Amino acid sequence: MKPAAESPSGERRAALAPWPLPDGLDTPAVVVDLPTMERNIRRMVTALAERGVDLRPHAKTHKCVRIARRQLDAGAAGITTATIGEAEVFADVGVRDIFIAYPIWPSPPKARRLAALAERCRLRVGLDSAAAAPLLGEAAGRLEVLIEVDSGEGRTGVPDPGTAVTVADAARRHGLTVVGVFTHGGHSYRSSDAPDGAADDEVRTLLAAAAAMRAAGHDVQVLSSGSTPTAIASARDGVTEERPGTFVFGDRQQVALGAIGPGDVAMVVAATVVSISASPDRFIIDAGAKALAKDSPPTVDGFGALPAYPHATIVRTYDHHGIVEVGDGARPALGDVLAVVPNHACPVVNLADELVIVEAGKVVDRWPVDARARNR
Amino acid sequence: MKPAAESPSGERRAALAPWPLPDGLDTPAVVVDLPTMERNIRRMVTALAERGVDLRPHAKTHKCVRIARRQLDAGAAGITTATIGEAEVFADVGVRDIFIAYPIWPSPPKARRLAALAERCRLRVGLDSAAAAPLLGEAAGRLEVLIEVDSGEGRTGVPDPGTAVTVADAARRHGLTVVGVFTHGGHSYRSSDAPDGAADDEVRTLLAAAAAMRAAGHDVQVLSSGSTPTAIASARDGVTEERPGTFVFGDRQQVALGAIGPGDVAMVVAATVVSISASPDRFIIDAGAKALAKDSPPTVDGFGALPAYPHATIVRTYDHHGIVEVGDGARPALGDVLAVVPNHACPVVNLADELVIVEAGKVVDRWPVDARARNR
Repeated sequence: MKPAAESPSGERRAALAPWPLPDGLDTPAVVVDLPTMERNIRRMVTALAERGVDLRPHAKTHKCVRIARRQLDAGAAGITTATIGEAEVFADVGVRDIFIAYPIWPSPPKARRLAALAERCRLRVGLDSAAAAPLLGEAAGRLEVLIEVDSGEGRTGVPDPGTAVTVADAARRHGLTVVGVFTHGGHSYRSSDAPDGAADDEVRTLLAAAAAMRAAGHDVQVLSSGSTPTAIASARDGVTEERPGTFVFGDRQQVALGAIGPGDVAMVVAATVVSISASPDRFIIDAGAKALAKDSPPTVDGFGALPAYPHATIVRTYDHHGIVEVGDGARPALGDVLAVVPNHACPVVNLADELVIVEAGKVVDRWPVDARARNR
Repeated sequence: MKPAAESPSGERRAALAPWPLPDGLDTPAVVVDLPTMERNIRRMVTALAERGVDLRPHAKTHKCVRIARRQLDAGAAGITTATIGEAEVFADVGVRDIFIAYPIWPSPPKARRLAALAERCRLRVGLDSAAAAPLLGEAAGRLEVLIEVDSGEGRTGVPDPGTAVTVADAARRHGLTVVGVFTHGGHSYRSSDAPDGAADDEVRTLLAAAAAMRAAGHDVQVLSSGSTPTAIASARDGVTEERPGTFVFGDRQQVALGAIGPGDVAMVVAATVVSISASPDRFIIDAGAKALAKDSPPTVDGFGALPAYPHATIVRTYDHHGIVEVGDGARPALGDVLAVVPNHACPVVNLADELVIVEAGKVVDRWPVDARARNR
């Protein structure tokens, strides 16, 4: 085996467990191993239950009603979404507790949709500006809001506790119910050493904002945090809710970060070797950017991993082609169907209409990706 | 204006024409300016008609029945697709001449689909290995095949004329009708100087393969080539058919390559500024990787261009956030709706369910992306 040190990213390449595929798949296809997925759900539910913390899994990863049901049946307190469109899909099938963890700008079309949605479920939304508060309040007075605070990612969220109070005050003035604070320590993804520090940043940031808001008279009940790499960190006192998403499937990035084990990847893309003609050092698979997406995080090399060919690297993707350099290992044959562990699960599911569900190497069902493309 | 030399890629940033959006859009949304698109179609049809060459536009760019109809009505000879799934969608609505420009591996599920499709239209498929020939022939004897030759991209296609003959001979032995050769000079995308050389490579490669195949007794009628940057090159004698796709919309990459003009971009992603809280040097838009894709070609900087903010750079995309660094210019206000010219049009359309069609600044229609996600 090629030692990890030879990989540009330092990734442990040989670590991924074999991922046998059923025969006869049409490719490219997104394939989910049901027992592995159910184990991933149970593990997260159990870990958070032991801490007395709510699990509110992010549904942007799976966008799938049947998976949300399994998460809720296993003990999740509600679900998280990124968009109103995702929330609408889950509310339509009876999910009654939804947090849109996003600083929605309530333009007229979004205000109308929020108002309709708030009639159908307990709806919480993110807020990181005083400017959005009057529009949100006008759209739907029944909304509960969580103030977003930035814990080091530099993306969204107010930069300090004082601003959190200013935004919370504006929300209250405009009739909204401020129930808490939330953050996403997305800087956990920057290197394999990053999750621990990001997890601490999340907790410290939430506690500081919550203390300032309580001192200003806000009833802060919810301190909501988390991502798959940080939700499982050990010191999380004060956090009341975690919102990991990717844990349900796992992906190559989560293995590289140590957030899941090398045998816990529940989802792969099945791809066929379609060409070996242009170069003896390469083979071409029918999973390109429209199947694998183009996420290329700093912790891994290339655009996906092939457990059966640990020396190979997907060096480039076109829309419908993945270009694989063989490296030191063998080359598969034309027509071979290979499992590809995607770098990042979420955009991959969003590219597919259905998930092929397998159990013990057999296809047992096909589940629609109900909220696919519901990205507004 | 910031001079071009300051941009890492050398891209001419200030070049994109303004792209006014209608009021009231829900975002993110893919918006198409109909008159610009129709002008792009007419220009390509006219340019190829003057050369006496067939236009067979690649439908993977638009995946839209109404756009394919406009291309055929304007004079296109047929369409190109990348997958059987796309071809099925267009055959369903009566398109009768389809070339799947891909070296399909005819696994049992694909063989069944090819056989059904070949009953409904004149179907041509790509072939770059002798190994696929018996399976293709068994699947559907009525298939016409074009031998794929590599003209320098190093992706798919046989490496030399001798191998083209070997593959064509195998196809003939197994009952397939060899009608020609095809190539894709995708190395045209590597730098802004690349298209001319790649265009020449395409022509030379096709002529050499066709000559060798004719010498071996094959009736080579079709020499099929092209991409948006190479189809418009001047010296193309011998090419009988061009397969550009992106020209219909144009995108930022095509402007950087000089393949379309800065006022010819017919498609943008409309995005809303949702946060300006975390840093004064940034603003956050609601178009992330699930709206803009993550294509980042070497000829441009970042993940899309904002014509109204030529100094700004989309430095990073998350699934639902685009992180924009302001640069030397102004920062928009929260709630502003901005046009983003995507780096690469094809994956963006594949992420959307519909195209919002505008004319003179008004929404005039919404067209479904009929073959979205039909990527197998």
